[in-house]
Amino acid sequence: MFIANKINLRIPGPTPIPPAVQAAMNKPMIGHRSKEASTLISEVSERLKPFFGTNESPLLFSGSGTSVLEAAVVNTVQPEEEVLVVVTGVFGDRFAKILTEYGATVRRYDVDWGKTPDPDALKKILQQHPNIKAVFFTQCETSTGVLNPIDKLSPIVKEFSNALIIVDAVSSLGAVPFEMNDWNVDITVAGSQKALMIPAGLAFAAVSQNAWNVIEQNKNPKFYLDFKRYRDNLLKGTTPFTPAVSLLFGLQAALELLEEEGLAQVFNRHEIMKQMTRSALRALSLPLMTNDTDASPTVTSVYQADGWDSEAVRSDLKKMGIVIAGGQQHLKGKIFRIGHMGYCDPLDILPVLSAIEISLKKQNVSLSLGTALQAAEEVLSNHV
Amino acid sequence: MFIANKINLRIPGPTPIPPAVQAAMNKPMIGHRSKEASTLISEVSERLKPFFGTNESPLLFSGSGTSVLEAAVVNTVQPEEEVLVVVTGVFGDRFAKILTEYGATVRRYDVDWGKTPDPDALKKILQQHPNIKAVFFTQCETSTGVLNPIDKLSPIVKEFSNALIIVDAVSSLGAVPFEMNDWNVDITVAGSQKALMIPAGLAFAAVSQNAWNVIEQNKNPKFYLDFKRYRDNLLKGTTPFTPAVSLLFGLQAALELLEEEGLAQVFNRHEIMKQMTRSALRALSLPLMTNDTDASPTVTSVYQADGWDSEAVRSDLKKMGIVIAGGQQHLKGKIFRIGHMGYCDPLDILPVLSAIEISLKKQNVSLSLGTALQAAEEVLSNHV
Repeated sequence: MFIANKINLRIPGPTPIPPAVQAAMNKPMIGHRSKEASTLISEVSERLKPFFGTNESPLLFSGSGTSVLEAAVVNTVQPEEEVLVVVTGVFGDRFAKILTEYGATVRRYDVDWGKTPDPDALKKILQQHPNIKAVFFTQCETSTGVLNPIDKLSPIVKEFSNALIIVDAVSSLGAVPFEMNDWNVDITVAGSQKALMIPAGLAFAAVSQNAWNVIEQNKNPKFYLDFKRYRDNLLKGTTPFTPAVSLLFGLQAALELLEEEGLAQVFNRHEIMKQMTRSALRALSLPLMTNDTDASPTVTSVYQADGWDSEAVRSDLKKMGIVIAGGQQHLKGKIFRIGHMGYCDPLDILPVLSAIEISLKKQNVSLSLGTALQAAEEVLSNHV
Repeated sequence: MFIANKINLRIPGPTPIPPAVQAAMNKPMIGHRSKEASTLISEVSERLKPFFGTNESPLLFSGSGTSVLEAAVVNTVQPEEEVLVVVTGVFGDRFAKILTEYGATVRRYDVDWGKTPDPDALKKILQQHPNIKAVFFTQCETSTGVLNPIDKLSPIVKEFSNALIIVDAVSSLGAVPFEMNDWNVDITVAGSQKALMIPAGLAFAAVSQNAWNVIEQNKNPKFYLDFKRYRDNLLKGTTPFTPAVSLLFGLQAALELLEEEGLAQVFNRHEIMKQMTRSALRALSLPLMTNDTDASPTVTSVYQADGWDSEAVRSDLKKMGIVIAGGQQHLKGKIFRIGHMGYCDPLDILPVLSAIEISLKKQNVSLSLGTALQAAEEVLSNHV
């Protein structure tokens, strides 16, 4: 009794596209070397600055998130240079893989998945390895739902090393505060298909003056991902290679929506959706993967427990028109993940919670229907 | 903390537009006298037949629902002819107003709003007025949320009169069964912006052979609403006047979706949404306007009660991104109405119920948050 192909996309990206963004992407195509395209490129870069918390103009790439992860590596790290990757999940691991591919000497600080790094341990690693040239963090680790506290980790790096701080903010930028300047972050990369509410295909990198000094000396061969080309072209209101113009139209419309709501309100909305989700799942005694301090406002992961199957939950939800994510790598079949970011209002959280209850009940989990919904509603009610 | 301009449209029409319908309406325009347009016109009329339960090809009008209400009058009833209008709310009253405008001798059977006609009373009226030429019904009375049982009323009309049976199915066609042939209905009219999931602007009329005999004799001046012109043109795959082509593209896509789901499943979905809504509101002890037998699967009305204000509920919901309807005419400020038809899944009912609970609680109504949600979920859970 559910409409075919009508889905509630509650995965941690891509996220639902607002109608105004969809409409904007249907605008008549323009030449990407036209004056209109230049205005568009300069404007969206300018308007992205507050999301990164920087005065440096974010660079615009046609590519997915991984393209700018690789760009952040290839523009800054040369073979055999020592780097530290703080790995809290799949995407920290991806940074390490890229660095290894490029011949860097990679130190890993592997944190238990679902947890954030211990500041003291980080400090010790930096003290033990004084030649570390760059430290790589993931702000929101999409694979587990932790939000690494960049504001607290960054001062440690700056105090105990001269390393660049490079942050993957793909699944958090636009949903949670990011203060590149205040936090002394050197390079921040992000993508389009998460909290920024547009389809995948655009990626962004904001680069500090400190990072530019390193980049200027970098000798790696690079072409499509060469930061300098993007910077020099952006000054002239263009991109070195063909930009994904329809996505830039979409970005412009999405920025309009986010600005209209106001960034503080956007962040608050995500915080409330997180609290509703966590409170609801806790009311069902489901084991959350993260604690309250470490939890990301964009995605919530739940461990499978005795008596029910996480893949059965996903498959039941699919039948009810709701898509959630499973686990990646060693968590495959062991967790499910709910995305609550982007074009999603607090009340939109209720259907996914209801469907989870119904699925668990079907799997003979002892629970009282409505428990999760009530808990979520109580959180929301305190904020309305 | 709600996204501006992101709304859950839970009024009894217009209803949300499915993305596939929106996309179809954006197809490149075609000439309305082209071969492609002829194919489109013939095809959608053919595919509408099962929704009306007839083998007669439904006529296609560019206009809103009222245009075909008027057409049903002007093509069949001449000045001073006696007619009966069964008035169960605003739209029955509208039939009476149109008939009065055209000089008919109008007998009204006014039923208390929120109730359906008494078969015995209907029988008596017909016996007392043997010259009644047509009886007008409203299948779903949008203003109150009753579903008049045409299958039960129609045989009475046929037994005790020779009158035509004319039914307004604007806010029910496509959400509940309609069996024009089996029920001996002579003219059925409907619109596009309700359960058919497209914007307003198209209207439909299906006409029985019996009705055509009357229409052929009709001498009223008429032009744009002349059924014969539409019938004669439809035989040639066209319309007498410019058709709203983009809406026909939309209708084609909507029919595709409804056929894919299957009509029985579509009706079942609406029945479950009705039961969820009613069960939830009842759990809050809110006074429903209709009883279970009379309630429409497309819209549910609730009387305002002591201690809370229905307009405050609507205004609170608006702030939470949900639009519901108020009362019309003498019910203004005394009821609210929730639409649950068209592109709406059972789980989509939860946000509006949650927002109502939160609003009532804010208005100091004594209730336990989550009560309505639990009741709705229990209904759904029995069907999944």
